[in-house]
Amino acid sequence: MSELRKDPIVDRWVIIATERGKRPSDFGTTKSEKKSGFCPFCYGNEDKTPPEIRVIREPGTPPNTPGWRVRVVANKFPALQVEGDLSRTGEGIYDKMNGIGAHEVIIDSPEHNEDIPAFDLKRIEEVLWVYAERIADLKKDFRLRYVMIFRNRGEAAGASLEHPHSQLISTPVIPKRVTEELDGAKRHYDLKERCVFCDIVRQELGSGDRVVEENENFLSLTPFASRFPFETWIIPKSHSSNYEFIGKGEVSHLAAILKNAVVRLNGALNNPPYNFILHTAPFDGRFPVTHEYYHWHFEIMPILTRVAGFEWGTGFFINPMPPEEAAKFLREANQFGWGF
Amino acid sequence: MSELRKDPIVDRWVIIATERGKRPSDFGTTKSEKKSGFCPFCYGNEDKTPPEIRVIREPGTPPNTPGWRVRVVANKFPALQVEGDLSRTGEGIYDKMNGIGAHEVIIDSPEHNEDIPAFDLKRIEEVLWVYAERIADLKKDFRLRYVMIFRNRGEAAGASLEHPHSQLISTPVIPKRVTEELDGAKRHYDLKERCVFCDIVRQELGSGDRVVEENENFLSLTPFASRFPFETWIIPKSHSSNYEFIGKGEVSHLAAILKNAVVRLNGALNNPPYNFILHTAPFDGRFPVTHEYYHWHFEIMPILTRVAGFEWGTGFFINPMPPEEAAKFLREANQFGWGF
Repeated sequence: MSELRKDPIVDRWVIIATERGKRPSDFGTTKSEKKSGFCPFCYGNEDKTPPEIRVIREPGTPPNTPGWRVRVVANKFPALQVEGDLSRTGEGIYDKMNGIGAHEVIIDSPEHNEDIPAFDLKRIEEVLWVYAERIADLKKDFRLRYVMIFRNRGEAAGASLEHPHSQLISTPVIPKRVTEELDGAKRHYDLKERCVFCDIVRQELGSGDRVVEENENFLSLTPFASRFPFETWIIPKSHSSNYEFIGKGEVSHLAAILKNAVVRLNGALNNPPYNFILHTAPFDGRFPVTHEYYHWHFEIMPILTRVAGFEWGTGFFINPMPPEEAAKFLREANQFGWGF
Repeated sequence: MSELRKDPIVDRWVIIATERGKRPSDFGTTKSEKKSGFCPFCYGNEDKTPPEIRVIREPGTPPNTPGWRVRVVANKFPALQVEGDLSRTGEGIYDKMNGIGAHEVIIDSPEHNEDIPAFDLKRIEEVLWVYAERIADLKKDFRLRYVMIFRNRGEAAGASLEHPHSQLISTPVIPKRVTEELDGAKRHYDLKERCVFCDIVRQELGSGDRVVEENENFLSLTPFASRFPFETWIIPKSHSSNYEFIGKGEVSHLAAILKNAVVRLNGALNNPPYNFILHTAPFDGRFPVTHEYYHWHFEIMPILTRVAGFEWGTGFFINPMPPEEAAKFLREANQFGWGF
């Protein structure tokens, strides 16, 4: 089992793999994805993954066989494990706990070579529903405090497998970046009695400069302080702190704007690697709590620039592309022939 | 001039380049370093960089000609510029300021193909002295609050030029990561009346598990909550908050342990790309202030793993190499034949 360790200065947690016997040569400097031709996420290889936790499949097809559309399994090499009791201990001035949590893979599609732009809207809706279901399910586990759902697409974005998939990691502590976002949003709320994300939605719709697309329930935009060129956020226009409370009608609009956002990035940037991350409220109560000050959203970050010493040391980012210009390119991206 | 913009939620600053006319195709997805053969940092090309701000050169050689050993120039494509008045403005709920600051390049050596392991100790001492001198000089500028000195080595670590160099960026705000470190260290001090870094030094010297090397003034170690495999910190054994107050005798010991740290990483990991970052106290007073609670140090991070969605979203890091194992390999790295 892995170990969670806390940096004693900045309260940053790391997950340390504790199995012994690794050699320095196991960390290849420029190791590329091994393309063995075998994919554990394709039809027919269901027995090469841990069993299904949740699945959407054709009626009548047995579990862990072909016939599924979206399939959730435990990660075969989990960063955190769901079995065991949470144990917090000290080591002198240091704090650690055992690596309790959950690490799941959401296999978005049986088609190995597709990504979001090729998915039909029904598939994207199903994937987005499964996200909400998994959060609602893991929330029942009293040891857990947060679920992070993310998608790494392309090797430069950290994807180790080509087959389209999302990941879910649930942690027994509220992660630092999540706490920062909650604290910042709460500060704004305490000062103004308004949600900062609702303020952003209002201001962006008013000016339009950074709006990429708007539909009935959602807004996609390039944020004012974008860290990365063409960074795109998708924000619900109505206030909601918890993604898992999303309604059926909203999911179809979310699927549409998410698909378009990726189509636009692909059109403007020729299929860039990207990370996308769901930011939602933590499990900080055992009752169905919502927050007036927090507002769930997706952040999509194309990986076009490298993070280096300055960014690591300061938390500042240098972005060579003004978000107003990026939004303009993304609005016009359908003229590149990708049409939607 | 660039623009500093603040994220309204998490108070994260970004530097946005404001020159217009960039095309999406300017952001090549997997663009490699252009190896044109021409290097502006080599002997004979001194007129291809902005003029020298500070230099160590052979007596009698004229400025901006060959004969130098270490040369500091303004960055030709600065993220922040030193000319102008600092102007803070709002844009609805958003805050921004113009891109005032400093962005300098410290050309560590005239030798294009060398890195720290090939430098003699005198050169490393000179480079480390120049760091201290530049901080002391920029501190006189009342508009500035912080100097970040860092070194990106290798393309994967964000180095855009091969020639060995360090960089310096001075910012008109105290960066978020620096504030976090100061706040965390202050919290520990308020609770215990001891510096957390001094506590780390004591505990690590006591156990020895994560010690890589120790000399008269410095300790190099793999931190308890290492984010990256083989992450190495160099910490002064005696308390000191401000790097620029380093003494002559200390610099020689720092040069020795820094050289060995990089030699060890190169030996164990076959010349990995790396970032190294000087963490020192900000300019938060106009008098020679030192802090009882803060302690300057270097952090060296070999780039062996990719940062992906999970790390971006949570601030958690997944480190597959226990620091105790990494320290053991680094202590023994001289048996790889690199000897020091």
